Amino acid sequence: MHILIIGAAGMIGRKLTSRLIADGGLGGKPVTALTLVDVVEPPFPAGFQGTVNRSAEDLSTPGIAAQCLADRPDVIFHLAAIVSGEAEADFDKGYRINLDGTRYLFEAIRQAGLVQPYTPRVVFTSSIAVFGAPFPEAIGDEFFTTPLTSYGTQKAIGELLLSDYSRKGFFDGIAIRLPTICIRPGTPNKAASGFFSNILREPLSGKEAVLPVSEDVRHWHASPRAAIGFLIHAATMDLATVGPRRALSMPGLSATVGEQIAALRKVAGEKAVALIRREPDPTIIKIVSGWARNFDTPRAKALGFVAESSFEEIIRAHIEDELGGKIGG
Amino acid sequence: MHILIIGAAGMIGRKLTSRLIADGGLGGKPVTALTLVDVVEPPFPAGFQGTVNRSAEDLSTPGIAAQCLADRPDVIFHLAAIVSGEAEADFDKGYRINLDGTRYLFEAIRQAGLVQPYTPRVVFTSSIAVFGAPFPEAIGDEFFTTPLTSYGTQKAIGELLLSDYSRKGFFDGIAIRLPTICIRPGTPNKAASGFFSNILREPLSGKEAVLPVSEDVRHWHASPRAAIGFLIHAATMDLATVGPRRALSMPGLSATVGEQIAALRKVAGEKAVALIRREPDPTIIKIVSGWARNFDTPRAKALGFVAESSFEEIIRAHIEDELGGKIGG
Repeated sequence: MHILIIGAAGMIGRKLTSRLIADGGLGGKPVTALTLVDVVEPPFPAGFQGTVNRSAEDLSTPGIAAQCLADRPDVIFHLAAIVSGEAEADFDKGYRINLDGTRYLFEAIRQAGLVQPYTPRVVFTSSIAVFGAPFPEAIGDEFFTTPLTSYGTQKAIGELLLSDYSRKGFFDGIAIRLPTICIRPGTPNKAASGFFSNILREPLSGKEAVLPVSEDVRHWHASPRAAIGFLIHAATMDLATVGPRRALSMPGLSATVGEQIAALRKVAGEKAVALIRREPDPTIIKIVSGWARNFDTPRAKALGFVAESSFEEIIRAHIEDELGGKIGG
Repeated sequence: MHILIIGAAGMIGRKLTSRLIADGGLGGKPVTALTLVDVVEPPFPAGFQGTVNRSAEDLSTPGIAAQCLADRPDVIFHLAAIVSGEAEADFDKGYRINLDGTRYLFEAIRQAGLVQPYTPRVVFTSSIAVFGAPFPEAIGDEFFTTPLTSYGTQKAIGELLLSDYSRKGFFDGIAIRLPTICIRPGTPNKAASGFFSNILREPLSGKEAVLPVSEDVRHWHASPRAAIGFLIHAATMDLATVGPRRALSMPGLSATVGEQIAALRKVAGEKAVALIRREPDPTIIKIVSGWARNFDTPRAKALGFVAESSFEEIIRAHIEDELGGKIGG
C-alpha cells in the first residue's frame, strides 16, 4: 500500500507518519511506500523499510498535484493548509494555498482517473472554523457552516468539493473537522488558541505559562493522539456507511479552562498549577469569545471515531507521548 | 445609478430589466445606465432612456469580469449560471461557469477596489439546490448545505465566497436562494421541474400538459413576480441588518401538485384541469423525490422579503403578467 501525505512536515503529518510506521500497515495491509510532501522537506521517516519519496513542493503551483500522484497512491492524506491567522492577514495566499491547492489536488486525481481507473481514499482535515458564531449550546451534525474567517471559508469550500468529487466517483473522500488540538507539543506560539496547550504543557515541564482569559472560557479539544486516531479510522473505514455527506465534525471534549486546570492539579499537583500566571489579554478574550464551545457529534461517534472523555486522559496522553511518561520540572 | 446585470438574457434577467425600467429607479435613485451581459447578447431594454451597454460575454473567460466593471456599476446582479442538468452532465463546464465565473467576478470587484475604493452592492442568485436530502419536515434557516448535485455545490461555494468577500469589505453582497419559479413563462422544456409550471401554464392557454408525478408530490414555489421582488429588495435593503450570514433562503409557498390543480380549477375551471394528462415517469418521480418540499424562512421574512401565500395568487400573477389578464383556450 502506497500512502501520500501532503502537509507531512507539520505536527499532525509527522505524528501520522510515525504512527503508520509503528503500525506497519493501514487497515490490515502493509505500507510499502510513503510519499511525503510539504512546503519544506519533511523529515526522513525513521524506521521505515519501504520506498520513501520526500519533496518540498507547493501544492498551489499548477502541475505539482499531478506530480504527487505519479505513482498512484492508494491513500491520500491532505493535511496541508496555511493557518487561520495567516489566511486572514494574506487574503491571496490563503485562497491560493487552501482553496486552489485543494482543488488542484482533487482535480489531478480526477484527471488521473480519466487516463486509467483510479479512486484513491482521500482524507482531508477540515476544521471547526467552518462554523461561525452565534452558536447553539452544542453544535449538532446538521448545523450550517457560516465561517467568520477566510480560513474557515476555504475549509468549508474544500468540504463541498470533496463531497461532490466523491459523489461523482472521482475518489472516495472524507473530510474530518478536527477539534482544537490540545496538548500541542513544542514551544508556546502566538496563535490565539495557543494558551489552551501552553497552560498544561509548560507547567508539566516546570515552566511558567500565561493564561490570557478567564477560567470559565469553554472550548472543544482533542489530543494529538486522538487526532491521529481519527485520520487512521477515516482512511480505513467503510465510506459506504457515511453516504454522500462526507464532512464530519469529530468527537472531542468540551471543557472550561477551569476544568483543564483542575485536571492538571490532579495529575501534576498544586506546584504545576502555581506556574500559571493570569494576564488577561483583551484581544485574545475577544477572539476566543467567537469560538465554538461545544459540539454534539452522534454521526462521527456512530461511525466509530473516538476522542478523550476527560482532560486527565488528555494530559496523561501527553505525558506518555511527549514526556516519556515523566512529569518534568 | 448604474446597474450591471450578468445573465441579463435569461428569463429572470429580462424581467428584472423590465421592472427596473418600469420603476424608473432603484431604492429611490434614478437608473441612469444599464450594463447587460450574458453569453448571448441581451435584448435591447425597450423604454429605457439612459445609457445602455449590451454584450455577449462569458464571465468564465479571464479578464471579462474586469471589463464588465469598467464603469464601476453601483449595483451588480449576478444571475448567470448554467443549469443543474447541464452542470451535472458537463462537470468541467459547470465548475468553469458557475464557480470560476463567480469567483472571477468577486475577485475583479476586489481588484477594482484596490485601485480606488469601490464597494458595490452584489446580489447573487443562489438556489435551494444547496440543500440535499434527507430533509427535515421544513428546512430551517440554520440547516446545513449538503448539495447532491454539482450545481448545488457550485452555488453553495458561491455563497461562501460572497459572505467572505462581504465580511472583508470588498463588496456588500447578499445571496438569495430562490424557490422553484412557477409559473415559468415560455414553452414546456425538458427540465425535470418543468411540469410544475407546465400543468398550469399550458391549460391556462387551452393546451394539454403532462403530469409525470402523483398529486401528493410537495414542492417549494414562488412566482417570477415574487422573484423579481426579492432581487429588488436585496439590492436596496440595509445589509447591516443581515450581519455576516449573507446567504438567505427566500420565502415561498409549499404546495402539493394536488393543491396546484385545485387552484387551477378555482381560477380557470374544470375545462382547464381536464387538459392535464397523467403520464407517470419513473425517472422524474425519482429525481423529484430528492427535492426539498418545504422551508421555514423566518430570517428572510423578518428582513422584508415577501412571496405568495396561495397558488391562486401565483396563477393570477401569471394571468396578469403573461396573458394580459385573460385566460386563453
